[in-house]
Amino acid sequence: MPATIADILHAHRSGRSTPSRTVAACLERIERHADPSIFTALFGREALAEQVAALEGRDPSSLPLYGVPFAVKDNIDVAGLPTSCACPDFAYAAARDATAVARLRRAGAIVIGKTNLDQFATGLNGTRSPYGTPRNAVRADLVPGGSSSGSGVAVAAGLVAFALGTDTAGSGRIPAGLNNIVGIKPSLGLVSTSGLVPACRTLDCISVFGLTVDDAFAALRVMAGPDEADPFSRPLSLGTPGAFPAAPRIAVPRPEDRVFLGDRQAEAAFTQAIARMASLGARIVEIAMEPFYETAKLLYEGPWVAERYAAVGPFLEAKPEAFNEVVRAIIEEGRRRTAVETFRGHYRRAELAARTRASLAGCDALMVPTMPTVYTVEEMLADPVRLNSHLGVYTNFVNLLDMCGIAVPSGLRPDGAPVGITLLAGAGRDAHLAALASAFHASTDLPMGATGEKLPSLPPATPRAGAGYHEIALFGAHLSGLPLNGELLEAGGVFMRRARTSDDYRFYALPEGRVRRPGLLRVEAGSGASIECEIWALPAEAFARFVDAIPAPLGIATILLEDGSRVKGFALEAVAARDARDITGFGGWRGFLADEQRQRQAAGIPAAE
Amino acid sequence: MPATIADILHAHRSGRSTPSRTVAACLERIERHADPSIFTALFGREALAEQVAALEGRDPSSLPLYGVPFAVKDNIDVAGLPTSCACPDFAYAAARDATAVARLRRAGAIVIGKTNLDQFATGLNGTRSPYGTPRNAVRADLVPGGSSSGSGVAVAAGLVAFALGTDTAGSGRIPAGLNNIVGIKPSLGLVSTSGLVPACRTLDCISVFGLTVDDAFAALRVMAGPDEADPFSRPLSLGTPGAFPAAPRIAVPRPEDRVFLGDRQAEAAFTQAIARMASLGARIVEIAMEPFYETAKLLYEGPWVAERYAAVGPFLEAKPEAFNEVVRAIIEEGRRRTAVETFRGHYRRAELAARTRASLAGCDALMVPTMPTVYTVEEMLADPVRLNSHLGVYTNFVNLLDMCGIAVPSGLRPDGAPVGITLLAGAGRDAHLAALASAFHASTDLPMGATGEKLPSLPPATPRAGAGYHEIALFGAHLSGLPLNGELLEAGGVFMRRARTSDDYRFYALPEGRVRRPGLLRVEAGSGASIECEIWALPAEAFARFVDAIPAPLGIATILLEDGSRVKGFALEAVAARDARDITGFGGWRGFLADEQRQRQAAGIPAAE
Repeated sequence: MPATIADILHAHRSGRSTPSRTVAACLERIERHADPSIFTALFGREALAEQVAALEGRDPSSLPLYGVPFAVKDNIDVAGLPTSCACPDFAYAAARDATAVARLRRAGAIVIGKTNLDQFATGLNGTRSPYGTPRNAVRADLVPGGSSSGSGVAVAAGLVAFALGTDTAGSGRIPAGLNNIVGIKPSLGLVSTSGLVPACRTLDCISVFGLTVDDAFAALRVMAGPDEADPFSRPLSLGTPGAFPAAPRIAVPRPEDRVFLGDRQAEAAFTQAIARMASLGARIVEIAMEPFYETAKLLYEGPWVAERYAAVGPFLEAKPEAFNEVVRAIIEEGRRRTAVETFRGHYRRAELAARTRASLAGCDALMVPTMPTVYTVEEMLADPVRLNSHLGVYTNFVNLLDMCGIAVPSGLRPDGAPVGITLLAGAGRDAHLAALASAFHASTDLPMGATGEKLPSLPPATPRAGAGYHEIALFGAHLSGLPLNGELLEAGGVFMRRARTSDDYRFYALPEGRVRRPGLLRVEAGSGASIECEIWALPAEAFARFVDAIPAPLGIATILLEDGSRVKGFALEAVAARDARDITGFGGWRGFLADEQRQRQAAGIPAAE
Repeated sequence: MPATIADILHAHRSGRSTPSRTVAACLERIERHADPSIFTALFGREALAEQVAALEGRDPSSLPLYGVPFAVKDNIDVAGLPTSCACPDFAYAAARDATAVARLRRAGAIVIGKTNLDQFATGLNGTRSPYGTPRNAVRADLVPGGSSSGSGVAVAAGLVAFALGTDTAGSGRIPAGLNNIVGIKPSLGLVSTSGLVPACRTLDCISVFGLTVDDAFAALRVMAGPDEADPFSRPLSLGTPGAFPAAPRIAVPRPEDRVFLGDRQAEAAFTQAIARMASLGARIVEIAMEPFYETAKLLYEGPWVAERYAAVGPFLEAKPEAFNEVVRAIIEEGRRRTAVETFRGHYRRAELAARTRASLAGCDALMVPTMPTVYTVEEMLADPVRLNSHLGVYTNFVNLLDMCGIAVPSGLRPDGAPVGITLLAGAGRDAHLAALASAFHASTDLPMGATGEKLPSLPPATPRAGAGYHEIALFGAHLSGLPLNGELLEAGGVFMRRARTSDDYRFYALPEGRVRRPGLLRVEAGSGASIECEIWALPAEAFARFVDAIPAPLGIATILLEDGSRVKGFALEAVAARDARDITGFGGWRGFLADEQRQRQAAGIPAAE
């Protein structure tokens, strides 16, 4: 039975299945799973049939999510279903889809229903709902995590291919960590929040759960982009995840700043996750967490709780008895804050943000445990505020610091509980995080969620640079490991792939300068050869600086590759080839250097730097 | 007597004067001007001599502001002088210079003293100070404008070469408008506010007054740049003002949205300013002002007034009698606002900002009157709150919308009052505004401030692209007025200058494609010629996109220019020259097109598109 988006699309495109059969199978799984607390509302067979009918006559390959079933957290509008925020008295009939939902439907995805949550998205554990607590898909006694509890469990149990959550304080990450799945918390403003009932409107974002990073990212790609209806929408470019970059710098909390609340299994799992990341080639950098933790405190102890009151205050005043008691107490707190406190909170946040940016300068990501420990439902109900806040240790600071994040499984503990890490970076680095997270996840060889199915191995990497990045073909001193490669890494460059040019080029070693460099020249058909290169992608600004700094006689030309594709890359001015040594016969710079080295050794000359 | 920074530097560099003589002349002018309300504190002769002595032995050409005297608004710290905010009981001895002041001193500038202001920078008129009202330098009965009253008057009267103001609601622009000088209000976060007593900390910026745009920009260039001590500091690039761009789109309030409060002379002056801008080549676009005006109201009627209380609340509670009554009433208002109101204010601002961005899409700037009318001191004192708020009609919205601005004189009214316009654009466009403002100002042929000296005519434009922009040499269809020039304009490109290559190139007409294009090829010394080109500057992202889109066989090479400088520009792959026609003899693409046109006409063939 297909589980991932890729599997479902493949089945639809190959004719092995149809959206109608996929939806039927999905309903059957939901029924068989028999947990009445996951969904707050499901579309009936007729409404689902209408969605399926809308796909008829469309080419399955023309829609990126053709016939893929998904679920939506019940604080996001879906036309035709009520929006309840897990507060039945608050529920209203949504007249239209939220922008994110509308974009997914236009891409061919099919909404199955709405999912349970901690009321008004206020909580990280999943027990704060009159609709009951969704059963953790991996270990039934554990809390499912919240506030996007139903969405997390629905994906982990394989009931839908992906599901939307929301994330203000960690609600898009904690359920992923507790259910052995992936949760992408996009950069603020990347996905429109139009059609979302706010928790903290300046910090809210719509998130997405999937069984794999690729799945969640595929849904994110469809949802992302500016929306006039959301004034907090920002023109961030999403990009495309590349391969795992060469030697990324990954920051981790220094040992004395790690919080596990005495949970040795969680601690051991995080140590293993660091080792795994290092084994993939990452350089680990330990940093102090104090400014992150102080920021986290601002979320509930500072002024931002007033945003919750701003969102539902009038309803709360009119109908206090409609609320979960814990949730009401938190929201009421927002009434008491003053404007002066609010601005002082903003000042403090700015100071802390500057410090955290400085401590992460030059790092590809910050890696933290997704949650410090796990709790059973019983434990949580006995101490609902304190244990809930423990769950947010590594999540509460993220939106206040304008970071994006991806929660990804890292293992299963000896006690059977899932354990995960979250990768974090500054806004706009979503695709870069996905590249890191995808390789990390694939290396774990875990089953996906609670489906029992193994993670697909990573497809052969032929990534291409996405929006905001520009590809460049490199032939000499900028190749991985060679003297100028650091320039690319510092500029945020991402290694994409190795490649070869078409047979139309000759290759020269230039007379020695500060750094030895080759030059590539296109020649008449039949008089050239194929030359090895690496394709890297650079952010636009770095690409511009890079091009601007290329010294004569090198420049930029359109390079024709062996596979017929074209890419901009380093090229030599023909007039300079006359003074240079033709090294075409070596097939590339590494071949030339290796030969030189052999000759040096043969002659007893020490190796050049 | 030298008046502008350029004049002073020239005198120092040529040996015609020395910093010591310049400072002595400055003190003499201050004494002769005899207005005790301009300065709140002046350095004594000894302290000034120390500053001068610090320049001894330095090469006058090595410091961008060598020996240039300036004044500092008295809410900004200058080591060795008290900071009073025009509230004597509040005054404290500043232990160190504000970052902006320290950078100016390091650049060779000499602080003469501190200037008067509307108390705690709360006001736009200049009468709210226990130190009296500085006399308007142009028409003595008018208010000087505030809150940076002393700084505006000091520059207009030629007492110092430039002066620092601050700008939260318009305090860096209104005094410029009322004293016939230039006021640059930089993008928020471009100049560090470390060492500034806050008015509204999230909206404050340090501004600069000068007699010319070039002068004010020279000081801005020295001050700009990230500062670890200011968490609101942002990594914005400043850039360098280019020449007046070709056909900029300038938005103006549509006629029914213009506010002049019945002042016909102000109305007529703005109409003339629009005509002047159009005569420089601008395309005028009329827009609705309602979202701007609604934003303006948020500043005092919304939550931001609480920032003023956050800044000086404890002092106000301890010593209410120390305050100007009008100022106290405004600041006390901040106590009453709630956190919920504050967040709702932020939401509304975001909505309005999105609308204003949309209405200015594709525009180079928004041009507004600097103030809607002028008031005498007598009028202002009779109705201090209402008339003050009138002055802010065109200024109050600017920082809330994260825009930068330059106030520049546009004329002198029949009644002798100065009148000015302000150019506004989104954060980061400071240099672009300066290019527009400088050309506009030069075209007015006005005297500078109240000095009686004429504005210098614009120097011959040989601008170079600054940080964030990349220069590119263009040879064919991208030249001004040719078919692909629009691509540059849409990408935010700025025309810099015409130029010629060195004698090392041959020039080819490529076989016809969608658009006819030439190609430039560097050849062996002695076998080429000099070819005409245009140098444009592109923002980094546009440059990257542009390079990425160049079709083979064109690429980018380092082009050697006639004057020995180097610039990246279009170049041809040598292998493609063989199929192309050598048109080197025409000296450039325009020469070739003109010749073709002549031949067509001679042969009776209609003109090609």
